[in-house]
Amino acid sequence: MNTTMTTAIEADATVPIIRLTRDFAATAAQLFRAHTDRDVFARWVGPDGMTTTVDRWDATTGGSWRYVAVRDGREFAFHGCFHEVRPDRIVQTFTWEGDPDEVALETLSFEDLGDGRARLHTQSLCDSFESRDAWLRSGMEVGVDEGYAKLDALLAAGEIAGTVEGARE
Amino acid sequence: MNTTMTTAIEADATVPIIRLTRDFAATAAQLFRAHTDRDVFARWVGPDGMTTTVDRWDATTGGSWRYVAVRDGREFAFHGCFHEVRPDRIVQTFTWEGDPDEVALETLSFEDLGDGRARLHTQSLCDSFESRDAWLRSGMEVGVDEGYAKLDALLAAGEIAGTVEGARE
Repeated sequence: MNTTMTTAIEADATVPIIRLTRDFAATAAQLFRAHTDRDVFARWVGPDGMTTTVDRWDATTGGSWRYVAVRDGREFAFHGCFHEVRPDRIVQTFTWEGDPDEVALETLSFEDLGDGRARLHTQSLCDSFESRDAWLRSGMEVGVDEGYAKLDALLAAGEIAGTVEGARE
Repeated sequence: MNTTMTTAIEADATVPIIRLTRDFAATAAQLFRAHTDRDVFARWVGPDGMTTTVDRWDATTGGSWRYVAVRDGREFAFHGCFHEVRPDRIVQTFTWEGDPDEVALETLSFEDLGDGRARLHTQSLCDSFESRDAWLRSGMEVGVDEGYAKLDALLAAGEIAGTVEGARE
């Protein structure tokens, strides 16, 4: 499949939210697995050239996570907790440890479109427009696009199991 | 001490946030303990006549919580995860299970004022003004005021230890 799948990024006009929408040649269950399987997640998240090591991972309701990304000797650490993890939706918190008092509330959902495609929706809620707009100015779209391209490649290579049961292994 | 301590409730004009401010005859460490000790928390949270049973409680960074409040045979369950727990600040998620897809991000901070008083600051961030305003219309101030009055009474009775070490027992 040669469809070009680009990420739509929307800054909400009335609340400090960033929304992303991205289609994949995948099932919703595969997208769920890509966001909940520790090893799979580490292989695609972040921009090219970044190596991610997950050091805490319990992708269940009430669990938590932390990972460290390294590029050119620089480390970027992130952590959060999983408010809810269910096959169609994940709600979690998100902090970059370089700015430890900034916390975003993220909601991800996975929508089967049929024809072998699924749509990822993400929503990141910040507590001020200043914080939200700083994310938008940070160059986040590069990491997002390059990360999702890596996820495309893992899906194309058949490396992501397609059942929710698989994701719970 | 006979100071009347009332709760200030502020609806932010530009972002969907509710802020509460309330002073207590307490130290910041006692306020921290009141929000992290499972048994103490269950004794003051919620309106009069409500009995609260905590059925999940790990008040540490990356932990989670759930409690069920009962009044007149009606049950109200709530749950969330603790993004960060530190002596001066708690960041956690919050959902009333009667509306399970609504999630608020709550930030609590504890400020010593001297003279045996401490100030509690809470911030609840919702993802829309509709959700935020529904909370404001729900009569939440009754539960807030009655709950904090119970906390006043526990403090006056000397039932809340005053050290952060105590809170970590």
